[in-house]
Amino acid sequence: MTATAVTQRPRTLGEDMHALIAELYPICRSITGDGFRETLRRIQDEIPLTLHEVPSGTPVFDWTVPKEWNIRDAYIKNSRGERVVDFKRSNLHVVNYSVPVRRRLSLAELTPHLYTLPDHPDWIPYRTSYYAESWGFCLTHRQFLALEDDEYEVCIDATLEDGHLTYGEYALQGESPDEILISSHCCHPSLANDNLSGMAVAVSLAQHVSRQARRCSYRFLFIPGTIGSITWLALNRTRVPFIRHGLVLSCLGDRGAPTYKRSRRGDALVDRAAAHVLSHGDGPYTLLDFVPYGYDERQYCSPGFNLAVGSFTRTPNGRYLEYHSSADNLAFVTPESLADSYARCLKILDILEHDARYVNLKPMCEPQLGKRGLYTAVGGGQLPGFELALLWVLNLSDRTHSLLDIADRAGICFDVIRHAAESLIAHGVLAPTDPA
Amino acid sequence: MTATAVTQRPRTLGEDMHALIAELYPICRSITGDGFRETLRRIQDEIPLTLHEVPSGTPVFDWTVPKEWNIRDAYIKNSRGERVVDFKRSNLHVVNYSVPVRRRLSLAELTPHLYTLPDHPDWIPYRTSYYAESWGFCLTHRQFLALEDDEYEVCIDATLEDGHLTYGEYALQGESPDEILISSHCCHPSLANDNLSGMAVAVSLAQHVSRQARRCSYRFLFIPGTIGSITWLALNRTRVPFIRHGLVLSCLGDRGAPTYKRSRRGDALVDRAAAHVLSHGDGPYTLLDFVPYGYDERQYCSPGFNLAVGSFTRTPNGRYLEYHSSADNLAFVTPESLADSYARCLKILDILEHDARYVNLKPMCEPQLGKRGLYTAVGGGQLPGFELALLWVLNLSDRTHSLLDIADRAGICFDVIRHAAESLIAHGVLAPTDPA
Amino acid sequence: MTATAVTQRPRTLGEDMHALIAELYPICRSITGDGFRETLRRIQDEIPLTLHEVPSGTPVFDWTVPKEWNIRDAYIKNSRGERVVDFKRSNLHVVNYSVPVRRRLSLAELTPHLYTLPDHPDWIPYRTSYYAESWGFCLTHRQFLALEDDEYEVCIDATLEDGHLTYGEYALQGESPDEILISSHCCHPSLANDNLSGMAVAVSLAQHVSRQARRCSYRFLFIPGTIGSITWLALNRTRVPFIRHGLVLSCLGDRGAPTYKRSRRGDALVDRAAAHVLSHGDGPYTLLDFVPYGYDERQYCSPGFNLAVGSFTRTPNGRYLEYHSSADNLAFVTPESLADSYARCLKILDILEHDARYVNLKPMCEPQLGKRGLYTAVGGGQLPGFELALLWVLNLSDRTHSLLDIADRAGICFDVIRHAAESLIAHGVLAPTDPA
Repeated sequence: MTATAVTQRPRTLGEDMHALIAELYPICRSITGDGFRETLRRIQDEIPLTLHEVPSGTPVFDWTVPKEWNIRDAYIKNSRGERVVDFKRSNLHVVNYSVPVRRRLSLAELTPHLYTLPDHPDWIPYRTSYYAESWGFCLTHRQFLALEDDEYEVCIDATLEDGHLTYGEYALQGESPDEILISSHCCHPSLANDNLSGMAVAVSLAQHVSRQARRCSYRFLFIPGTIGSITWLALNRTRVPFIRHGLVLSCLGDRGAPTYKRSRRGDALVDRAAAHVLSHGDGPYTLLDFVPYGYDERQYCSPGFNLAVGSFTRTPNGRYLEYHSSADNLAFVTPESLADSYARCLKILDILEHDARYVNLKPMCEPQLGKRGLYTAVGGGQLPGFELALLWVLNLSDRTHSLLDIADRAGICFDVIRHAAESLIAHGVLAPTDPA
Repeated sequence: MTATAVTQRPRTLGEDMHALIAELYPICRSITGDGFRETLRRIQDEIPLTLHEVPSGTPVFDWTVPKEWNIRDAYIKNSRGERVVDFKRSNLHVVNYSVPVRRRLSLAELTPHLYTLPDHPDWIPYRTSYYAESWGFCLTHRQFLALEDDEYEVCIDATLEDGHLTYGEYALQGESPDEILISSHCCHPSLANDNLSGMAVAVSLAQHVSRQARRCSYRFLFIPGTIGSITWLALNRTRVPFIRHGLVLSCLGDRGAPTYKRSRRGDALVDRAAAHVLSHGDGPYTLLDFVPYGYDERQYCSPGFNLAVGSFTRTPNGRYLEYHSSADNLAFVTPESLADSYARCLKILDILEHDARYVNLKPMCEPQLGKRGLYTAVGGGQLPGFELALLWVLNLSDRTHSLLDIADRAGICFDVIRHAAESLIAHGVLAPTDPA
Repeated sequence: MTATAVTQRPRTLGEDMHALIAELYPICRSITGDGFRETLRRIQDEIPLTLHEVPSGTPVFDWTVPKEWNIRDAYIKNSRGERVVDFKRSNLHVVNYSVPVRRRLSLAELTPHLYTLPDHPDWIPYRTSYYAESWGFCLTHRQFLALEDDEYEVCIDATLEDGHLTYGEYALQGESPDEILISSHCCHPSLANDNLSGMAVAVSLAQHVSRQARRCSYRFLFIPGTIGSITWLALNRTRVPFIRHGLVLSCLGDRGAPTYKRSRRGDALVDRAAAHVLSHGDGPYTLLDFVPYGYDERQYCSPGFNLAVGSFTRTPNGRYLEYHSSADNLAFVTPESLADSYARCLKILDILEHDARYVNLKPMCEPQLGKRGLYTAVGGGQLPGFELALLWVLNLSDRTHSLLDIADRAGICFDVIRHAAESLIAHGVLAPTDPA
């Protein structure tokens, strides 16, 4: 046997995100409670998140902030005292938000409280009962089939009491008060893709944005699904008009192709930016029209708000077999997918930051690019792509077309069009329509 | 041999329609005359049709109500006195509206007055000469080939004299003066699909509508093709503005797929309703853009009226081999096709009756459906279709989208969307934009 | 052996155009200079072209009219005094607009001034250096590989001095001051398709138009590429508003399918006319959206002018292998393609001349065509195509649809629709919306 020297390679950003997911994975989160708080406190190690606590009973539009749920233990014991289902082995075993219970039941009495996935007999389903007071257990179908006709002791050592709904917020001021909203739900327990992946990507984006010059302001929300966005919108109504664009981030770590679901508006800048980024990126992708189902875009895109907020995922919620089950685990998400999701989000943000309208200062015929060193000296051969981008920017910069309009019309990547515009500005033949 | 007990099954609606067609089939109809009157009188047994008589010579826009045509007998006899072509065997044998004639002619003189279908040597074509005074006979190509070089006696015992154009009308008042026009041409002699089928479906629709509560008013017209709709429009100009939607019904009994031809407007409610019904029904279907050829939609959609009147058929006129020939007979139309055509018309009328705009009374975020019993208690699994319909109605009920808009946008059947809206109204979260 | 009498067939128009191309082919043209003048003088034998001379140094928008270039001889001689590259064998051998040079160089010093096409080792490329003062030679890759390590004598006996830019113009007055612009670039030396073909088609069109009654006025420009259209636009700014439609003609003789590139407007009448002509013609064709690269449409469609000028070619510039090389020779262009290009241009011009809006004078229902002899007397059979055209014209002539709108909507050739309209006008049921 020979000794091999191991070279230590620095961790990639994708690996960093996966490591954060792995740390957060074991915590039992719900829409309220200590698991949620513990999760946000870990994120505070990465970004200076502000934690807000909203009391149970607070009215938020048509809803009320619910009681706070905390759980210590839960199990089903057989008559021999063996834990045949044990919360300590997986926090998915308890129907999330179950009321406390401690009873003895026959198998027949117990069965209506049990949830399994017969088609995937080794997976534990994830089920919730937020807004109807009930209790239940989720188990593998194999566990269920092994249950004997016995008397069982059922225990859910949980509390459901007045307390608070917690959410995290990180606002970054830009040159303009116009805001980009990045929202991810943090309420799911041990599910890696849905939605530790979205949280991890949001954290990395926030870190990046905080280090950059910014035209736009940014607001990152780490919230419980549905009730979190409803609560934020209800308590921050004066902030809403500043939200110009937004992304709901979830399911960003699986091996599927990137997917963008348009906002209710359908043709908002964020919708067009995302479509541009996906169509100019490598590999397959999916663009979906808005559907009033999914995650918090349902609230941001309700008709009373109708915000320009789209949803960015890889395989969307409900479209992968492992969705809402124990198979959505750490192996289901990859550093490569996380890194690719992050990179595409950055490109979308880049367009939101830099899209603008310019005006060609020499609109009568083409300006002579050759004398400015912007054009190949010897003609007759093929036109380099950058020169074509210059011609497109000049031709369409008539105050009505933005850079993204031009990029889409030309079929050229936004980056190239933007650099062409910058070059033309530097040579005095192009100017912003609204000089800063 | 054993005796089998025959159970008497009640006749289906399709069989009722086919039976009516069979009764009307032998009558020799034309655009005027006693055959047309006899047909309408038989329909009066089914629905309380009003018969109108318009005198020959009445000017109707660019046209004049023609003389009335009646025929008793017609034949071609050979020199042996044998009827080689006999109107009594098929009323298609005479060119419809032929002037009276009684002459002896050689085969060479006779031939220019004969019409056959060489590609279908056993079929008699259907030909007309309404607006040019001439005469002729239609015969099978086999009959034609068997004609010897002989002297023939030709007789058309018809009259073409001042009289009346007859049409039938059945108006049903609804809550609103807005009318739905159902128009079918009744001028063809023994052709089952074109258009005894359209007449039979119109009769059944009228019977159904008369028994229902109605928002819309209805007007059923049983008219001669072209001159009938021109006459009605000319004599009822003050009624025209009340026509909000309409269907011309013809060729509804053949085995082909249902076909809707859009109105000249192209995007009228009736056009969108028909497209919705066909796309959400079973099996293949065809949607056609307006063409200024076909039946009475040509007149309703002339530029001076431009009514929202589409055409509903199975295989459209001229697209089936049997069209305008003796092969368009009782065997060519089926109870199943008639019943299917009727059912689709009803669904179209249902949309015209019930499409409306509503307003979400809780437009800020989603209203909490769970507390109203409209949402599955245990979450995490798949969303039932009706709950998705509720979300669509809530999301798009912003005063600008009608139920049909929502159904089309969601890809959900109008019925489901309508029931979702009714449920939301019952729970106080949705209201009509214009309360009645 | 028997003697055969040879019948002299008159030359076709395509052959005439090819013969003109063959005459002009040997001349060494550039964007200025005597070759350009000689070319226009030959065209003056065909049409009464006015020659304009614009002095070097004249400012034209962002550009300046360049010095005039004339060349007498050019070669590369090896040390044995042999011309290894000789301008007299092909005028493509000199980089067009090269400055005068007479030097001795090593092969290493010479090589940066040499241009070849390694993928097509027997073809000479065509290269230019209009706006950067430099020099060079173009040669076949085989010639290049045969060059020994020798000392070479390089001579370009050219002058680049103040003089003039020459262009030709032929304006034809029509009933209306509205102009159709036909522009072709004439600055390329021995390249047959690019653009002697465009020039030859333009000459034939001018001859045809001059002999016809004209509603529109016409302006034919024979100009150097880019600087020619810039110069014309700069010096004729008051004429520009009269240009209502235009075609840039080039590459019209190769065996490829006809191609129309839309104007920047995209839906101008000329764009729709060209699309109609191509789609109703025989064989494949290509329609391209505007791209700000190509020939003089770049200038006509710059945002300050945004003229309705499209580009008509067969295979577009840069899309055929022989493009800008010695393989674009007399064999590369065919009389058949030239004649087909000419015929399609005429059809486009025909639509520009005759498209107009009419009004149906009998808009309530259809007018009775039968009594005007415009409708088949015996009905029931198939409708002839011309009668369908009559119905379309009547149905859509509501002051909002032009004949081309109707033709496109009906899917019927413009000619047929136009003749239908003329027939209806003759019968008093249709009238121009704006009587002349």
